[in-house]
Amino acid sequence: MKAFLAGLFLVAAATASPWGPSASWESWTATSSSSASPGASPSGSTQQVFYGRFISTPNPDQLSINTGAVLVTSNDGRGTIQNAVWNVTDVQTALSSLGVDASVPVIYAADDGFFFPGFIDSHIHAPQYPNLGLFEGTLLDWLQKYTYPMESSLSTTNSPLYANSTAPPDPYARAHEVYTHVVASTLAHGTTTASYFATVDVGATNILAELALSMGQRAYIGRTCQDNTDNNPWYYRDNSTAEAIANTWSSIKYIQSLDPTGDLVAPIVTPRFAPGVTNESMTVLGQIANETNLRLQMHISENVREVALVAQMYPDQSSYAGVYDAHNLLTDRTVLAHGVHLTDDEMDLIAARGSGVSHCPASNSALGSGIAQVRRMLSKGVNVGLGTDTAGGYNPSVLEAVRQAFLVSRELSFLANDDRTLDVPTTLALWLGTMGGAKVVYMDGRLGGFEPGMLWDVQEITLDSGGDVDIFGWETWTERVSKWVWNGSRRNVNRVWVGGRQVSQR
Amino acid sequence: MKAFLAGLFLVAAATASPWGPSASWESWTATSSSSASPGASPSGSTQQVFYGRFISTPNPDQLSINTGAVLVTSNDGRGTIQNAVWNVTDVQTALSSLGVDASVPVIYAADDGFFFPGFIDSHIHAPQYPNLGLFEGTLLDWLQKYTYPMESSLSTTNSPLYANSTAPPDPYARAHEVYTHVVASTLAHGTTTASYFATVDVGATNILAELALSMGQRAYIGRTCQDNTDNNPWYYRDNSTAEAIANTWSSIKYIQSLDPTGDLVAPIVTPRFAPGVTNESMTVLGQIANETNLRLQMHISENVREVALVAQMYPDQSSYAGVYDAHNLLTDRTVLAHGVHLTDDEMDLIAARGSGVSHCPASNSALGSGIAQVRRMLSKGVNVGLGTDTAGGYNPSVLEAVRQAFLVSRELSFLANDDRTLDVPTTLALWLGTMGGAKVVYMDGRLGGFEPGMLWDVQEITLDSGGDVDIFGWETWTERVSKWVWNGSRRNVNRVWVGGRQVSQR
Repeated sequence: MKAFLAGLFLVAAATASPWGPSASWESWTATSSSSASPGASPSGSTQQVFYGRFISTPNPDQLSINTGAVLVTSNDGRGTIQNAVWNVTDVQTALSSLGVDASVPVIYAADDGFFFPGFIDSHIHAPQYPNLGLFEGTLLDWLQKYTYPMESSLSTTNSPLYANSTAPPDPYARAHEVYTHVVASTLAHGTTTASYFATVDVGATNILAELALSMGQRAYIGRTCQDNTDNNPWYYRDNSTAEAIANTWSSIKYIQSLDPTGDLVAPIVTPRFAPGVTNESMTVLGQIANETNLRLQMHISENVREVALVAQMYPDQSSYAGVYDAHNLLTDRTVLAHGVHLTDDEMDLIAARGSGVSHCPASNSALGSGIAQVRRMLSKGVNVGLGTDTAGGYNPSVLEAVRQAFLVSRELSFLANDDRTLDVPTTLALWLGTMGGAKVVYMDGRLGGFEPGMLWDVQEITLDSGGDVDIFGWETWTERVSKWVWNGSRRNVNRVWVGGRQVSQR
Repeated sequence: MKAFLAGLFLVAAATASPWGPSASWESWTATSSSSASPGASPSGSTQQVFYGRFISTPNPDQLSINTGAVLVTSNDGRGTIQNAVWNVTDVQTALSSLGVDASVPVIYAADDGFFFPGFIDSHIHAPQYPNLGLFEGTLLDWLQKYTYPMESSLSTTNSPLYANSTAPPDPYARAHEVYTHVVASTLAHGTTTASYFATVDVGATNILAELALSMGQRAYIGRTCQDNTDNNPWYYRDNSTAEAIANTWSSIKYIQSLDPTGDLVAPIVTPRFAPGVTNESMTVLGQIANETNLRLQMHISENVREVALVAQMYPDQSSYAGVYDAHNLLTDRTVLAHGVHLTDDEMDLIAARGSGVSHCPASNSALGSGIAQVRRMLSKGVNVGLGTDTAGGYNPSVLEAVRQAFLVSRELSFLANDDRTLDVPTTLALWLGTMGGAKVVYMDGRLGGFEPGMLWDVQEITLDSGGDVDIFGWETWTERVSKWVWNGSRRNVNRVWVGGRQVSQR
């Protein structure tokens, strides 16, 4: 993977001068189609046909397995599915049904594989990527010991990480390295869309936006607002509400300058979590998000001590969700991470506002936060997607979140002595990681499946012996999907496309 | 891996005529040292030195990281650590300290890797390997729908798996294929010792023993005794207690003929679980095991409905463990799988008998069985190891069992609002998968570490970019071990040795 990283690094450098404005999505596509980026389609071609086995979860309880072909057009600069034909078993029939001629390039899924919608990681902390697998204790202690030191090390030599070593001349070089790894690694794991928490630092946050754009990942990128000086370390915070708002605006404007359409990379307003921000900044961030129609993301009700702290800070509010709602932060463009301890009233409020919850089971188990009530949230009409919560979660793959969503739901089932209504079966978990996530990141109808009008954000899964899935040959395709879910890894992700453009190759 | 499998298949075929007696361990070592088996040490050499970084868990709370060298002798036919030197950083010093000359071959750990004790899978069902990732429901239903059909398909055309397809002319060919996969795959995952449940069929069970011997895995292999005609399907059971005992003896004698020393492959008496066997057969199997000093293995207290069924079958017994104890099945050579719902009295009884419990967290979560009280068992003096419980567990790797042991313990901690006394940290979990497992499989002091007198059952872990562990270079080795634990895979297992002989190569 190192050579691959180096290659992407060059593309990044070519399109984005260190911290200056970068190329737009359109000019990037032009750039990279003539660059060394793997498998980019021939420059100028605006149509592609994808042919072979397609597997997806159009509904929470439906696993769709079909052979067909999809026509993707890029002349809208987006890479959208224009047409699809199903139940065809030869490519010529497919092409004629799609009404395209032989000049259109055809991309075939491997015989032992299938096209699957790209995963949507609705909650991931890009700067914590180097901490994957490094954690202990519960949320509030873990933040102080692991999280803030690592996040701050990408922008300031005041980071405690440098206390016992020589500080680097330029922490932004480290930010560039870490963010190159996280984008390349998540793409290689099939994550085509990520809702990223960056850091409190504008420059480092902008580097992440430049890299996501140049490496071709659909990304919503938020500078974390954390201006509550009581609940943030001296070395890593906004030193005033005024500074917090100014830096939030600065990052928003810069990211919008990178991708004016906001199709691939867009800013997302990110008040980190209620204990870390002031009442004043929440008010202003709510105004900014609603005036600009930008997305929002924040943590909610992850840990019982955190919930108690919020209740103590806002005695006049009925609940944690109520605090956010009082600041107009609950919108249909809002991603709420975790929601482990939400009450029924909070779920009803979140559903009424059309906000979404990012379920992060690996993180919740690893940090001993508890088990979120996914089926209860869904039954109340709350939008739910999956998040890796890198690095509270230990694994950058949404497929691991799919597995853990199933496993923790089975423990809920056991504890409730209820073997029916609490389960999150693999089909539902896959839906959460694709279609469900699309709703949560405000891309309902644009991501998560193979319907005309959706973007071609897709991963090609292969089940060859190069991976960790051991296929004997007698398995049905439904069984093969289950084997992929439970033992699949990055090794099973062959090619990844975002907006019709290939951005990763195993 | 397919080519690798084919190669091993040939070795197996070369040493084991279809179902006839096979070569002994000693003659196998001679065979394979002149065979194509990867990296076998030069024929005739009886000493090897292993040099580099060694990491292990000598105690439940101690992660040992050291550079040194180990001298392994094979002239005892076993591959035993004769001597070890630590805190040496050049090989010449190490060799002279070990008192060996330049003629002894030196095997180096990769610079970015380390030697780690081979994993001990104290509970794995070899015939269920093709079902990895295929499961639903809870224990008793899952047995009927997934387990018994697959297990029976390795020996009889009466298997329901053949109801809708043409039965193979010889199910034993399928047994050979499945068992070749399971031994090769678990070796590739670093499992050097496995306590296998085979099937009720003698011929298929013997094939597993032949393959483990020829492929070089330390394996305890049990024909499952299941003669209770009420609780086993008509197509897959012992049809009488007399048949059960006769077939148990037949498999024991055959496996002992393969490896008269019992060093590498040995039979293990396996009354499947109390509901599946009769009172009579448990009595006789207890006699057999105690007369022959053989190991024993059975399931215990995995699922609440199973526990209720046992209480109903044995109203005069105080507990599930009491039922086994009344039949003299609880010995210091007994492996008890699961133990999710053991009472304090049962833990005390098991500790008093010196029996061990195989903790299978992945399986317990996947089947909604509950969460075993590992720390409570340890505090009461019960020996505890880890099991994958393939295929109630979805992953053949003990490393996944290490991860799940940590995760479910964190959920116990949350539920008990106790952040201290219930946790199974990664160091303890690694100890359970090595030293703890050694106690459970009656190999205490012979497996699990690098002390003189222990067998060289070792895996070489590498953290290069070929794996799924993303190392930046600034991490300490303690941090690298943690990153390996949480994101490591088969890709990080480079070479594997059992009894001093290399048996797997990535």
